Amino acid sequence: MKRIIIDMDEVIADPMGEMIEWYKKEYGAEPDKTKMIGSWVIGFPEEHREMIMERLRSPGFFRHLPVMEDSVDVLRELNKQYEVFIVSAAMEFPNSLKDKYDWLMDHFPFFTWKQIALTGSKDLVFGDYMIDDHVKNLKGFKGKPYLFTSPHNLTVTGYDRINNWKEAADIFLKHPISGSRE
Amino acid sequence: MKRIIIDMDEVIADPMGEMIEWYKKEYGAEPDKTKMIGSWVIGFPEEHREMIMERLRSPGFFRHLPVMEDSVDVLRELNKQYEVFIVSAAMEFPNSLKDKYDWLMDHFPFFTWKQIALTGSKDLVFGDYMIDDHVKNLKGFKGKPYLFTSPHNLTVTGYDRINNWKEAADIFLKHPISGSRE
Repeated sequence: MKRIIIDMDEVIADPMGEMIEWYKKEYGAEPDKTKMIGSWVIGFPEEHREMIMERLRSPGFFRHLPVMEDSVDVLRELNKQYEVFIVSAAMEFPNSLKDKYDWLMDHFPFFTWKQIALTGSKDLVFGDYMIDDHVKNLKGFKGKPYLFTSPHNLTVTGYDRINNWKEAADIFLKHPISGSRE
Repeated sequence: MKRIIIDMDEVIADPMGEMIEWYKKEYGAEPDKTKMIGSWVIGFPEEHREMIMERLRSPGFFRHLPVMEDSVDVLRELNKQYEVFIVSAAMEFPNSLKDKYDWLMDHFPFFTWKQIALTGSKDLVFGDYMIDDHVKNLKGFKGKPYLFTSPHNLTVTGYDRINNWKEAADIFLKHPISGSRE
């Protein structure tokens, strides 16, 4: 069984979307997505970035994130046909660790705790495929890397892209997903 | 630089020792170490094992564990001569995640968060050497495995053993540790 390593933030969880919604309510304004190259945080005005980082570091933030569209249906099927590991480079945000575990168990209950890893670096893990939105995670990977498209990585070249979970299904699933395909 | 993957519990942290001390105070008795084959929990009387498991699962337990003898001095040196990762299969105890991070940063401040991984399974990680007290973690490892001796694994055969951190220094360090060698 082939092994797929799947990232969390900006891939199956949507911290950027959550932050944008919160920012709209607080300030009645939206960040500039065209300025997010490298990091979505820099799409927000400079004077608010430290506050954005504080929210990211605070307990609870990663507990209540939106789920990326179609990710639940596609990962449920992937989990039948592949050895799936959810690997998040979460150690920079230690308050997120339990939140990420709880969020995964809530939204992806077909995974067991054995399939989750919260790391500092992804240089440590190996597999056949990796789906991630960050080059820093993909570049040392020995298997086949896929860049999951996000505003912050739109200018990156040199990687095959997955733009959404319907595309991932087309790449990885032998049998289409019942009920959720167009 | 060669990569060493080092476990936490029963290798650099001592949850069994902590539990035995607590049990002595509560019950004025000691567990039977000769009965710990497979798991140290079964060295405690059967009627107390569920309580032992509850303590393991509760927030805070892994925050205040004793440090295994000589592990700080030896790991400080290993960290200069190797790429060291601390990998704990902690996901079974989600309340331990932040505790383990905080404990490591307290006692091993020379590590960065990039060197820590809290996983469900260790099948996911690769390196040149792994030091672990559990065969389930060592058996799929592609590098050279070392079994760190603990009461629960005394009957295991087929692995090179490390009985304490002074032995680990003899195996891995080119230069002896200043001030802490006999």
